This record gives sequence, C-alpha cells and structure tokens, in this order.
Amino acid sequence: MFIYIAGAGAMGCRFGYQLQKSGNEVILLDNWQAHIDAIKANGLHITGDEDLMYPMTIMHPTEATREADFIILFTKAMQLKAMLTDIKSIIGAKTKVLCLLNGLGHEDTIREFVPQENIMMGVTVWTAGLKNPGVVFLQGKGTINLQSFSSQGEAAVKDIVDTMNAAGLNVIYDNDVVPSIWRKACVNGTMNSTCALTDSKIGQFFGSEAAIRIVKTIIHEFVLVGTAEGVKLNEQEIVDYVMHTAEIAANHYPSMHQDLIQNHRLTEIDYINGAVARKGVRLGIATPYCQMITDLIHAKESILEIK
Amino acid sequence: MFIYIAGAGAMGCRFGYQLQKSGNEVILLDNWQAHIDAIKANGLHITGDEDLMYPMTIMHPTEATREADFIILFTKAMQLKAMLTDIKSIIGAKTKVLCLLNGLGHEDTIREFVPQENIMMGVTVWTAGLKNPGVVFLQGKGTINLQSFSSQGEAAVKDIVDTMNAAGLNVIYDNDVVPSIWRKACVNGTMNSTCALTDSKIGQFFGSEAAIRIVKTIIHEFVLVGTAEGVKLNEQEIVDYVMHTAEIAANHYPSMHQDLIQNHRLTEIDYINGAVARKGVRLGIATPYCQMITDLIHAKESILEIK
Repeated sequence: MFIYIAGAGAMGCRFGYQLQKSGNEVILLDNWQAHIDAIKANGLHITGDEDLMYPMTIMHPTEATREADFIILFTKAMQLKAMLTDIKSIIGAKTKVLCLLNGLGHEDTIREFVPQENIMMGVTVWTAGLKNPGVVFLQGKGTINLQSFSSQGEAAVKDIVDTMNAAGLNVIYDNDVVPSIWRKACVNGTMNSTCALTDSKIGQFFGSEAAIRIVKTIIHEFVLVGTAEGVKLNEQEIVDYVMHTAEIAANHYPSMHQDLIQNHRLTEIDYINGAVARKGVRLGIATPYCQMITDLIHAKESILEIK
Repeated sequence: MFIYIAGAGAMGCRFGYQLQKSGNEVILLDNWQAHIDAIKANGLHITGDEDLMYPMTIMHPTEATREADFIILFTKAMQLKAMLTDIKSIIGAKTKVLCLLNGLGHEDTIREFVPQENIMMGVTVWTAGLKNPGVVFLQGKGTINLQSFSSQGEAAVKDIVDTMNAAGLNVIYDNDVVPSIWRKACVNGTMNSTCALTDSKIGQFFGSEAAIRIVKTIIHEFVLVGTAEGVKLNEQEIVDYVMHTAEIAANHYPSMHQDLIQNHRLTEIDYINGAVARKGVRLGIATPYCQMITDLIHAKESILEIK
C-alpha cells in the first residue's frame, strides 16, 4: 500500500516506521527542516525498545505529488488545515484518510478536503517521543480504535485495518469511536492546560483536593456538551479513567507543558477545552471552566510572546 | 495616643513610623523573628523618599500587655484571627480598632473580639515595600478611607482621624466605605491570582484580549455577589478603575506573585476570590471564575509544597 504520514512528529514516525517495515511504501510529510535534514542524511534513528538507523523518505507536504492509497493525519491540531491544503493534490477519489489528532472537531475541517466516504476517525494509546531532529524514542505497545464514516462501515476499510494490523499496530474497528475520542479529550482537557499553567507534572497537579475539584468540573462540562451533541458519555466512568491515567502518568509533563513552558510554542488549547467552550456557546450550555482555562492559556502564550 | 500596629509588614511599619514621628507612642507587633531582631538592634531602617535609622519598639503580639487607645490591624488576611487571639488582653472597652487588611469578610472575624462600637473598616492606597528584615522602602503619598461601625458614626472616631491626619496619613472619613473595600478587592481579585498563576507582571497579564475577558468576568462575579449583599457597586466604573490601576502598575508584580512564586508563602486567595466564591454559594449565585482561580492557586500552593 502507498501511504503518506502527514505530520511526522514522534507518533507519525512510529506509525511510518512500523508500516514501512511491514512492507508498505511510506512517505513522511513534515515542515520541520532540521528533522527533514536529519532523516535525509542518516535515516530515522529509532531508540527505546530497539536501537537502529532506518532509512525513510521524508519531504515537505507541498513536494508530495503522487496520489495516496492511505493518509494518516497526525499534525498538531492547529496545523491540520494548512496540511490538508498543502496535500490536496495527493488526495484522490479513493484515498482513505485516517485522523489520529488529539482534540475535538477535526472531522469538520477534514470534510472540506475529503469525501465523507473516505474519512476515518481514530484514537490511539500508542506513545512515542522525539528526542532530537531525526531521533525518536519508541517503547511499549499500544492500540488504535478507529471508525469509518463510510456508509459501508467496517467493510469499506477492511484492507486498511489489515494493513495496519500486519504492521503490529493493534487496530480495533470500533462502531462508535466518538465516545473514545471524547474520553481522550477529557484526559487532555484536564491534564494539559492545568499542568502547563501550574508548571507541574501530572502527579503534582492531581495531588490536591482543589485540583480534583477543577478536574471534575472540566469533565462535567465536556460531558454536558458531548451529550448535547449526541455522544454517549458516562461521567463517572470518565472520571475514573482520567484519575487512573493520571496515576500511570504521574511523573510526566503533558505535551502542552512541553509546548508552552519548555519550548514556547503555541498550544492546542483551542481544539481541547476551547472546542468545548465554542460548542457550549453554540448549544447554549455554560462552560466557564473550559472558557477560563482556554483564556488563561492564551494569556500565558501572549505573556511569553508566542505567535 | 497609645497605639499598636498589629502586623508590622511594610505598610504597618509605614503607619507606625508616621504616627510615632508625629508624637504618639507606638508599638509594632509581629512574629517575624529576623525583623524583630533587626529593629531591636538598629531601629527601623527607612529608605526611599528618606534614608534614616529610626528607633521603634517591636515585640511579639503575645508580649503586649498594656491596654491600647488604638490598634491598626495590618496582618496578612490568614493571620488575622491568630493575631486577635494573641492580643485579646490589650483590647479594652474603649480601644478603637481599624482594619486595613486586603480582602473581604474581615469584619466578621473582628466582631468576635471587638465591640461593634469600636470597629473601623478602611482601605488605603498608600504603598510600602519591605526590602529586608528591618528595612522598609517608603515612596510617594497616599490616602486612607475609613468608616466607623459605631452608632455615632464619624463623631465616635474624630480623635483617631485627627491623630492620623496629624501624622500626614490623609484620612478621609467615608460614610460608605464598603464599596471602596470591594473596589480594591476587585483590583486584587483580577491581578493577584492571575499574575501569580501566569508568572507575569501586571502589564504582561493585561496585554491580551483573553486576559481582559477573564478580568471582566471576575469583576462581574464580584459585582453580582456584592450587589446581592447590598453593596452599591457600579460595574463599568470598577472595570475602568481596574484597567487604570493595571496601567499604572504595569511594571509591577502583585503581592500574591511575591508570596506564591517569589517566596513560596501561602496566599490570601481565600479572602479575595475565595471569599466571593463562598459568599456566592451562600447566596445561590454562580461564581465559577472565582472558584476556579481559587482552586488553581491552592493547587499551585500544593505543587510548591507550601503549608
């Protein structure tokens, strides 16, 4: 299968590596020049469970010209629209597109570029880290839950699922993936913004009653808005899942802390808490905690003069 | 007049200095040992508009035994109750007590120790800084607005007002001081917690539209709750006042930033935004912004292991 990975960050590199190793033709697309240069010069340096240099093809999105069988979207949320604009010419009538981005509302953007029949939405618990340009850290195993928006459902994407499973990616076809996407958004919506703002590891933030009140109120707003949109969400189950995830990830800084505090980059807040606040306005549901934390993160971006 | 300053931080030292210089007998009360030792050894070091060593009497609150004519309360908000407990024996039937603490709700605490007739509530725009133990920085001029809770009103505290004005403290007797206290609480409630949380100077925080949305929503909650308590508050006038104050103080870190971020001390949040959130619960008024920012500050106190 001929596959593009649109957004070759840590996770994009992981999936590209596994798919190429299992016999597919893979091209990574990214705009980070130092990363492109490193991979072109030396290949992708895999560290973690393995340690090897692995030759891969990488280019700028605008350089891709050959129509794809399959595209995995794995950009930062705020780069999605620009990426889709750049790769318009490789999205053919039969090109299947899988979105694995964090956050909510991406399907609306993708529909502007891809026919509904060819869109898949997914969520993954695989992890990966980028240590340096061209150097990824891959450890442990994960799964991907995905669903096709095609009227034929699972049958429409059987070859994609088989291809990904042959690459060891542990794909589960999920007839109702949207609740899982919201549940992951709840994890991000309670950990990312709060740890970035309080400059703390996940376990540090979750260590006080005051913080747990905030976490539960944010989840409550997500559930109110998601439910109003017709997503089946169980609030107590999500609270338990978030608390459990926080325990496992206690010693880690979430990605928004890395973006905002460590690297002074713009955050994905508008696609997590900000998305819920916008949906809340549209639905007439008050989401003050999501709105306030979104504005606090934007205020901090402004204080750090990130543009 | 025989006067105690209960809480000899920067502001307490300023008022004590001015009152003693104008001919009163003044004793400073505090528990900070290094500060006590410095003043006992060398006197109070005045810097800023003047530069001199000024002999003053300072002791622990529990060491004070002589009944006072007048006590100015100027502790940190969370130390007020302990201070009043420690100085119970110097509060006589005729001892007038003026509260100049930041924040809301202190009158309820003071009433447990002082007859209503003898209580004055006030608010000041004087400033002062503490550079080191025993060393204050005094620059510029200010005013004090105060009101007596006595049934006789202004007449009950004429000698106090005269004494303070003889010390150059520019006291204005105010028949309705409570709105001014709330207005100052709005300044603290929009600048202190936000700048502490985002680790920013006032001008940096007020520099984005996102921040201004937060500021206005916090003020709106203060006004809803204050109005429900019968305080006459004009929301637009308070917004203008806060914005104007932020402009003047743009290059400063507010006191809560100094407490939380610079010195890792507990904050006064429970007496500012936290007080409005508690009153909101009692009155059935939603105050999500005040509640969330209070909890974020408490979470940060916990992250920094401040007890």
